Amino acid sequence: MHILVLGAAGMVGRKLVERLVSDGRLGKAEIAALTLQDVVAPAAPKTSIPVNVVTGDVADPAMIAKLIAGKPDVIFHLAAIVSGEAEAEFDKGYRINLDGTRYLIDAIRAIGGGYKPRLVFTSSIAVFGAPFPERIGDEFFNTPLTSYGTQKAIGELLISDYTRKGLLDGISIRLPTICVRPGTPNKAASGFFSNIIREPLAGKEAVLPVSEDVMHWHASPRSAVGFLLHAGTMDLAAVGPRRALSMPGLAATVGEQIAALTRVAGKSVTARIKREPDPTIMGIVSGWPRDFVTDRAKKLGFITAEKTFDDIIKIHIDDELGGKFAA
Amino acid sequence: MHILVLGAAGMVGRKLVERLVSDGRLGKAEIAALTLQDVVAPAAPKTSIPVNVVTGDVADPAMIAKLIAGKPDVIFHLAAIVSGEAEAEFDKGYRINLDGTRYLIDAIRAIGGGYKPRLVFTSSIAVFGAPFPERIGDEFFNTPLTSYGTQKAIGELLISDYTRKGLLDGISIRLPTICVRPGTPNKAASGFFSNIIREPLAGKEAVLPVSEDVMHWHASPRSAVGFLLHAGTMDLAAVGPRRALSMPGLAATVGEQIAALTRVAGKSVTARIKREPDPTIMGIVSGWPRDFVTDRAKKLGFITAEKTFDDIIKIHIDDELGGKFAA
Repeated sequence: MHILVLGAAGMVGRKLVERLVSDGRLGKAEIAALTLQDVVAPAAPKTSIPVNVVTGDVADPAMIAKLIAGKPDVIFHLAAIVSGEAEAEFDKGYRINLDGTRYLIDAIRAIGGGYKPRLVFTSSIAVFGAPFPERIGDEFFNTPLTSYGTQKAIGELLISDYTRKGLLDGISIRLPTICVRPGTPNKAASGFFSNIIREPLAGKEAVLPVSEDVMHWHASPRSAVGFLLHAGTMDLAAVGPRRALSMPGLAATVGEQIAALTRVAGKSVTARIKREPDPTIMGIVSGWPRDFVTDRAKKLGFITAEKTFDDIIKIHIDDELGGKFAA
Repeated sequence: MHILVLGAAGMVGRKLVERLVSDGRLGKAEIAALTLQDVVAPAAPKTSIPVNVVTGDVADPAMIAKLIAGKPDVIFHLAAIVSGEAEAEFDKGYRINLDGTRYLIDAIRAIGGGYKPRLVFTSSIAVFGAPFPERIGDEFFNTPLTSYGTQKAIGELLISDYTRKGLLDGISIRLPTICVRPGTPNKAASGFFSNIIREPLAGKEAVLPVSEDVMHWHASPRSAVGFLLHAGTMDLAAVGPRRALSMPGLAATVGEQIAALTRVAGKSVTARIKREPDPTIMGIVSGWPRDFVTDRAKKLGFITAEKTFDDIIKIHIDDELGGKFAA
């Protein structure tokens, strides 16, 4: 089996590649070749699997055509301009997130001769825009309030249509906000959900810009990789023509996050969270989904690696910190 | 006021232009110029308003740029490859229905300098795909089962996003199936809904390929033009960022259509309907919407010209047959 990962240098991409390499297989099939693309060179993993690293832009149709000419059996499409950047750089967002996705599916179609790879498209809960019901169900409509969400919603529609026409075998999975996001604090408005866990566990202060009653929808990086692997191997006939699914997650208030951190790591860790309310961030976050009903994805076998927010913190300590933290 | 109509030679386009010319104004503004585009030359109406007729393809970005360089104040975008053709000719459908719409909104954006025209996009109930609830509400999700429906749903998303970014002032209106469609019977699977009214009224036989319990969602051509005019003039601030609306209509079974025809025109007319069940058409139609709840559009002032299916038939007799029919 030949696997192509687009956006392999991103946080989720790196973790997916790590897991593929460590498993050596996807589902029942041994991995015979791995192609890793990103706009910055993805790190080549240590493995006996032949790895082809490609540096380039998904909005370059020639590069996409070359990648698809290798006829990968499974394609994980994680390449995207993120929300804030797509909002600030309108053309760039549409070029990468919309045109890039079209180049990809049209390159697949151009191969012909029955070539019909599994395409796993990482979508986002940004396809939803406030006002919402308290819990967003599987049949709630897409009214994105960002260009990023618009581009993801369009990608979903395209992949469902190309799948319906038999041109590929696609599925779009809407990931919850990934928590705890490893690395350094970034400027994303959602960054604090991870910062308030990750930084205190590393002995550093973190800023909480919203009140403790803010609720949001989370999944661990381990869950995200699990969703991707399941989407890459599951029987899609059971999914039918509606190929976009909101992934399971965990709804937690910031207060619940902090309580979990206290239980897992103690009050001395939680004490490193500094409350500095920021009206701008509070305004942005008030338009975000809080909670979901994801019965469809659950019935189709998508499961989270965590049952509680305590688990999310423990997964971070295990997977990122080697089991240790700054007490 | 300068008005541009894209797709002016189509059935709804022609009727819209007739009405604009006869009114001489749109809302409170006098029409100073009218530009009519279609892929076949639209008929130039008899009017003292200066009319510019342009023949060309909306998927030609140079032609679109030229049309938009004239800075029309209101643009009615009715140009589209219809459902059956977009399904049969995949590339053509995406080129006209998706690329054409993008060329249009990007041409508007390219003008800059505060140019922000009203853009009325004719969408379709084809953005919905079975299975449905008995009545489709304003927050039901878009899962089209045709490429045409996919392209319309994408157009809606783009127009909402460009509007949100302040690049234009757009609204997408999802028209019901237009009934009674004037002209000759066409090969559209939905053609029989109009054929069984129009042909008997003209003294001709018509084929009914489905059973009488089939329910569908209709509006007269007069209503469709009314929706377009309202969308072109209404205060869109009240609509907010969710700029796609299902238009009001009338749910009627085929049996109710026939009963209405008997009431309006008599049994001798209804007797011209020949029942020839066609399993293919029955299959296609079973995946179509039957009924809607359109509270949002109604609150925003969209109203139908008809209260009953009898009215739909009378509107056809008045507007198309000069008040007479073959008894």
